[in-house]
Parts: sequence; structure tokens; C-alpha cells
Amino acid sequence: MARVYNFSAGPAMLPEPVLSRARDEMLEWRGSGMCVAEMSHRGKEFMSIAAQAEADLRELLAVPSNYKVLFLQGGASTQFAAIPMNLLRGAASADYLNTGSWSKKAISEARRYGQVHVAASTEAERFTRAPGQDELTLSDDAAYVHYTPNETIEGVEFPYVPDVGDKPLVADMSSTILSRPIDVSRFGLIYAGAQKNIGPAGLVIVIVREDLLGQTLPATPTMLDYKVQADNDSMYNTPPTYAWYLAGLVFEWLKGIGGLQAMGKINARKAELLYKTIDDSGFFKNPVEPASRSWMNVPFTLANPELDDTFIKEAKAANLTTLKGHRSVGGMRASIYNAMPIEGVEALVGFMQEFERKHG
Amino acid sequence: MARVYNFSAGPAMLPEPVLSRARDEMLEWRGSGMCVAEMSHRGKEFMSIAAQAEADLRELLAVPSNYKVLFLQGGASTQFAAIPMNLLRGAASADYLNTGSWSKKAISEARRYGQVHVAASTEAERFTRAPGQDELTLSDDAAYVHYTPNETIEGVEFPYVPDVGDKPLVADMSSTILSRPIDVSRFGLIYAGAQKNIGPAGLVIVIVREDLLGQTLPATPTMLDYKVQADNDSMYNTPPTYAWYLAGLVFEWLKGIGGLQAMGKINARKAELLYKTIDDSGFFKNPVEPASRSWMNVPFTLANPELDDTFIKEAKAANLTTLKGHRSVGGMRASIYNAMPIEGVEALVGFMQEFERKHG
Repeated sequence: MARVYNFSAGPAMLPEPVLSRARDEMLEWRGSGMCVAEMSHRGKEFMSIAAQAEADLRELLAVPSNYKVLFLQGGASTQFAAIPMNLLRGAASADYLNTGSWSKKAISEARRYGQVHVAASTEAERFTRAPGQDELTLSDDAAYVHYTPNETIEGVEFPYVPDVGDKPLVADMSSTILSRPIDVSRFGLIYAGAQKNIGPAGLVIVIVREDLLGQTLPATPTMLDYKVQADNDSMYNTPPTYAWYLAGLVFEWLKGIGGLQAMGKINARKAELLYKTIDDSGFFKNPVEPASRSWMNVPFTLANPELDDTFIKEAKAANLTTLKGHRSVGGMRASIYNAMPIEGVEALVGFMQEFERKHG
Repeated sequence: MARVYNFSAGPAMLPEPVLSRARDEMLEWRGSGMCVAEMSHRGKEFMSIAAQAEADLRELLAVPSNYKVLFLQGGASTQFAAIPMNLLRGAASADYLNTGSWSKKAISEARRYGQVHVAASTEAERFTRAPGQDELTLSDDAAYVHYTPNETIEGVEFPYVPDVGDKPLVADMSSTILSRPIDVSRFGLIYAGAQKNIGPAGLVIVIVREDLLGQTLPATPTMLDYKVQADNDSMYNTPPTYAWYLAGLVFEWLKGIGGLQAMGKINARKAELLYKTIDDSGFFKNPVEPASRSWMNVPFTLANPELDDTFIKEAKAANLTTLKGHRSVGGMRASIYNAMPIEGVEALVGFMQEFERKHG
């Protein structure tokens, strides 16, 4: 079997040049006599790999110098606790926007550490759009405002960055980071699990403004204290070295294709092609309001849900895999992250049109 | 350059057959059309990899059926907080044995969640031996007893498993797990960072008796709640899939060489050879009492510390790397984990004898 087009929501496809490099360097990284996974994290070889990865990420996202970039573990779900623990900073409450399944998880965990004011919710509309700026009911005493720019499960993406005045804006960018340029200075903290657009699962990146560090809740585990991690360059203990290295290879690949401006154009074309196919069809349907449609995660349903299994099966036979929708939503979902080439989306679109002709 | 003998304390050498397999499967795992790092953690391919790894680990360690095996993130340092959060279970205090740098870190973090009674300490003797059973001053009201069977930095290993009556015995086995057979039923909880004898950094394994689950401190992050992780088969969120897969390859390799009985014999020979070389020499010295010497981490000093840099440099030229001692101890340290072949220890010993002849 050849390599497939894998539409998994994460862990997801990695760029083939990255995998080839990793394969070629598996037994020995550049004359070091060892695999990167075997290197002491405090040795000069790994330190250079780690520093280069951070520098490349900073360059890609144009991270201002008053932000720390942390390479941590535990996924976004661990950050759901770490964020209130680090950012409540004496305040009793925080504002959260409720725009999908991952927002809800973040809210539920934050409630264990402080009060959560839901400053907007689209739950009554089954999370089929992002709320507008004028719908946000921000509170004066909130320590920060949290939102999920792209909801992986519902396929809803904010078409704008909320204006939250002088409050720190906190964003779970797990499924959108690096998909296009962003203005980091608009945010107090950005976090992202790696397993969609960064690298393998087991790494989570936190980009945090320095003035927000250093005032944690008393029960905060030392490993979840951003200041401790920042002061130790993410090496308070042994970091996930091999995942960090693979992320670095992804950053290098992104730079090679022209950075986020170029990547954003490719992603826009991929998303446009897929949504147009869905909208032009009488057979496939995406429930999300067009202005809020995700570039990365495209859920869609078939006119006849009894054909779902046939769709999955025939798609797999055509080397198009992991298209089943999340159990909470049903139908299909095509995740088309950075590493999914336009050829993969073209193949999917061709398959969908053929499927409609055959079964529609 | 060829592959080197790498004496790093962790991340450390991985078995070459494991790396070769990982290299061969990097672009495509067994006809799946994808790298393991690209697989959905909920798909049947990765679920089979995860289940096989757990089954093999259970077989290697003969884990009784009333224990859960968890594949988590954040290293042993995150467990330093998770353990009191999960195991204090209404009690005010726990007993800790203070036998080296890692014990001290565990104690310091536990003090943030409850009282710590130090039930034995060898700090006054600079951690050069394990305390005897008759030296342990266990308390009646401790929720559990924590110790570090092998201290990675000092090279001190308990030659016995402490008898703590009916208290749960909790062990940080990061640098000794899988080095020889153990009786898991003697422990309430065993934890181990992967980057020494299990696999790459970014994975930590917790083996916990089921009756200890489910009574956490209020501020415990959901991700650190063992019961949540056990109920979700370590997939409450996306686990570190690639690290889990590599760990599975290591377990398979261990089974192939005959399991822990066979591994233990090899490790005993390796350690004996190195300690004998040190003891027979008038030039090298190991400060640890013979009965408490670690099979895995062998610190040693040179009669003339001014030769330390020369030793490191000449060793590196002989393809023997990462021998510098921990900054807190100085001198040299040879970590000879499972993946270090006997040939590596023979090469080191030969080099040491030659060095002594030349410089002694």
C-alpha cells in the first residue's frame, strides 16, 4: 500500500519530507552517533536542535520578544487547568466564550479553580457559527478572556480576533496555529497541542506574554507553573525531546514553502475547493455559517446517513482515510491541516463527486 | 561516524533493533499507509499498538490484574505532585525516604500538598548508601511510603524492597524499571519516566493498585487524576502516541532477549565489570557502599580531577560519550541502562585501564 491521504483530526498527517528526514536521521543525527531520542537534553546537540526549533517558530509567527515560547507536555487538556492556575492572579473570575466542544471542556476545568463568566455562547445554535464582536458580554473583573479560535469537532473558526480591551486574550489554537499569519501581540497567551499542525502528540506549545508570569494558585504543580518552565527554558525536567525535534523539522518545512503567508494561501484554496464541492452538491451538507467555516476541519453529512458506512469504506479503498465524523456530531469530517497537500483535497473532492453520481 | 556508546543518564541509548524498526516503519506502519505518529489515537491501528505495548509490559513485569497501567505525560516530576494529590486520600501526611537528589525533589513537591515525614535520610552521609530496613521510622498515620529505589545522580540503589506493613509503597523507578524482575504486588504505585529503560522522553508510566484510585485533592487537574486516566485507558486526551509505540518496540525487544530474568543477568555482569575495574584501580573511585551500588548509574572520580576534561575528550574520541558526572556531584558517571550492550561497558573499561596507564 502507498501512503494514504489521512483526514484525521489529530494526530494527523505529517509532511512527507519531515518523515523522510526523521527516517534518515533515526540511527544517527548528523554525525552525532545517536538518534535525537537518545541525546541528553542538556547536551550541545539537543540544545542546538531545541534552540533552532524555537527560533524558527518565533520567525514563522513573528513572536514579539516580550513573549516566552514553552515546549511542554500534557496536551491542551492540561493547559485547561494550568491557565486558571497561572492567570487568575488574584482575581476571582475569568471570561470564556462557549463556541464548541473544546470551549466547553476548557470552561468545565476552569470552573474548578475560579468563577467562569460565559461571555458568549452559540450552544443554542448547536455551535454552527462564531459569535460576533458585538455579542461579547465581557466583564470588568475578569482576569482574562479565553476562547477557541477554531473548534476541531464542530468546524467553526472565528473570522476575527476578539477585541477584549486591556484584558489578556487567551486562545486554544490547537487546530489552527500555523495555518495562516496571526498577530501574536493581540494575545496574552496562545497554546496549542502539537498533533495537528506542529508535530506528533505529546508536545504542547505555550506562547505567553512575560508580564503574566509568576503569580500562580497555591496548589499549582511546579511542572504547570509557566514561570518555572520559562526560567528553565522548558527544561525544568526532561522535555519531550523527540517530539520537539520533529516539530523543528515541521517548522523548517514551513519556512521552506514560504512561511505562513504562503501556507495560508494554500490552506484557503484547499478549504474553498472542499466547501464549494459541498455547497454545489445536493448530496453533501456542511451546517456551519459560511463566514465561520474552519479552514482546517470540515464536517459534512450525506443526504442519506445510511450511506455513511459505504462512504467510509469506499473512501478507504481509494486511499482516503479517517473521514468518520466525531461521535458527538456524526457524519463525516475531513481535517485538512497544513500537511494535507492540495492533491489530497482534490482526490477527496473527486471521490465525493463520483460517490454522489453513484449513490445520490 | 558510527553509532557511539552513549552513557547518558537519560534520555539514553535505545536498542539498535528498535531504532531500525522505527526507521523502517517511519513512512508507513505495516500497510497502514501512515507513520504511527500520524494515526488517530482512537483508530484500530493505534489501539492495537497501545494494547500490545501494555500487554507486553504486563507480561515483562508480571503485573497483577488488580493494577492499572497508565501511559501518561509530564515525566516523573509531574508525578511528584500527582502522587500526594491522588494518594493522600484524606490523610494529612506521608512518609518519604530521603536517599538522593530525586528523593529530595519528590519530598519538596509533596510538602506543597501535605505533611512529609522523612522516615529515613542518608543525606548526612552524602547519599552514599541506602538505609537499612531497621533504620526506617515509619509513622502510623502516613497515607503512603515513598522512596526512590535507584538514585540516578548518586548511583545508589536499594538492595531490598522496604517492608512498610499495610501502607501503600510508592516507588520512583525511573532509572531502574525493567532492569531486573520485581514483585509488583509489593507496591501500591510504581512510576517511571520512559527516557532511561522504556523509550523516548515524553512518556511516564504509572502502575497503580486499583483500590488506591478515586479520592483526589480538590485542586487536582483532571489530567493528573489517576482514576480519570484509568477509566479512559490513558486516552482522556490524546496520549503521546509515538512515544507509546517506541516503548512497545522496546518491550518487544526485551521479550526477545528473554525478559527481565535474562536482562537482569546481563545488567549484573555489566555492573560487576565496571565496579571491579574501578575497585581494582588506584586511580578511579566510586563513593557508594558496595551493597547499595546501582546497576544502572555508576558515578566515579579520577584521582586527579584536573584530568577530568582530558578523560571526557579522549573518551569521546574513542566513541564513548556523555560520561560527564552530574553538575551536583562532579567527576564522571556511566549510565549503563538495558540498551547499553556489554560491548559498550567492555569498551569503556578498556579505555579506563588505558587512561590510567597513560595518566595514572
